[in-house]
Amino acid sequence: MSSPLLEQLIDALRILPGVGQKTAQRMAYHVLERERDGATRLASVLAESVEKIGHCTRCRDFSETEVCAICTSASRDAHLLCVLESPADRMALEQATGFRGLYFILQGRLSPLDGIGPAELGLDQLAARLAEGEITEMIIATNPTVEGEATAHFLAQLARSKSVKPSRLAHGVPLGGELEYVDRGTLAHAFGSRIEMS
Amino acid sequence: MSSPLLEQLIDALRILPGVGQKTAQRMAYHVLERERDGATRLASVLAESVEKIGHCTRCRDFSETEVCAICTSASRDAHLLCVLESPADRMALEQATGFRGLYFILQGRLSPLDGIGPAELGLDQLAARLAEGEITEMIIATNPTVEGEATAHFLAQLARSKSVKPSRLAHGVPLGGELEYVDRGTLAHAFGSRIEMS
Ligand SMILES: [Zn+2]
Ligand SMILES: [Zn+2]
Repeated sequence: MSSPLLEQLIDALRILPGVGQKTAQRMAYHVLERERDGATRLASVLAESVEKIGHCTRCRDFSETEVCAICTSASRDAHLLCVLESPADRMALEQATGFRGLYFILQGRLSPLDGIGPAELGLDQLAARLAEGEITEMIIATNPTVEGEATAHFLAQLARSKSVKPSRLAHGVPLGGELEYVDRGTLAHAFGSRIEMS
Repeated sequence: MSSPLLEQLIDALRILPGVGQKTAQRMAYHVLERERDGATRLASVLAESVEKIGHCTRCRDFSETEVCAICTSASRDAHLLCVLESPADRMALEQATGFRGLYFILQGRLSPLDGIGPAELGLDQLAARLAEGEITEMIIATNPTVEGEATAHFLAQLARSKSVKPSRLAHGVPLGGELEYVDRGTLAHAFGSRIEMS
């Protein structure tokens, strides 16, 4: 290489998902040739994000404040709680639907073989929240995979034990898929025709 | 969004080539969930790169020193000079061939309509270098596009005017393509069977 520092940059870019050696090279060249101001900003925002972004103590989504902007918003409907596996799923759902309730992010799904049980998903915290009495319906929007379905049934029992009505996204979400990759139309339809869990 | 800072991060990632909103979101989530140490390093290397990486005064490739590591290397053959359009082309060629000579990077190609003439490509500097008398062969490896070919003919004239033998990559490089995307085998073959320009 003509520049050891450039070599380090290419190597460092490979932490990004889907970025191999060739793509990292193209990114490094592109940035140095045409995006120096943008790269300075990216470096600064990235460092600040790693330092400051943790998890909201109320919904477990990413947040740089103790309680996130959505949980503290006065314009959200505090009677509806939507439970999701990941922040990416939350964003997909928020963008696709007109949902104005609150969220709870599991940061995973029940997977006993991987040692992921109720504690790892914050279900004690969720149970305490349901017990507060404000939430009337809990919309369970875990992914339509085997583990996601098992998690949904566990969550439905939890909701009923706190006298909260559990509901589930309607069929329409393709089986075996990941919410994050479902098109907006399908997701919006499935959300709108969610059914109460029996 | 649950986090305004996360929103800024997603926005900042979009300076990377081929990265739209969806990919930027995935990158931000991935980094925050699984690559915090790597992201801190990327932020630091990126900031340092933008600050320190300029161009080698001898070959015009990227370098954080006045003269780059390749130009100062004692193990390169100073009689052979390979002229390329871009640093990405240089890296592709260096990786594909066993070339041990030196390089000159045009940082573009002749394109009168876009106002890119000999001055913008550093051809005065190249002429001065050829006049030093050490270089015996100049391998012209511009891209096999119309503008790249025109540039090659201009460069061949320049070489001959300084009594340096111009050569060109052999056919085998597909017409209309970009060196950076040519597979290693084709590139190595074309380089090995380069022909003297008449
Ligand atoms: Zn929150
Ligand atoms: Zn150099």
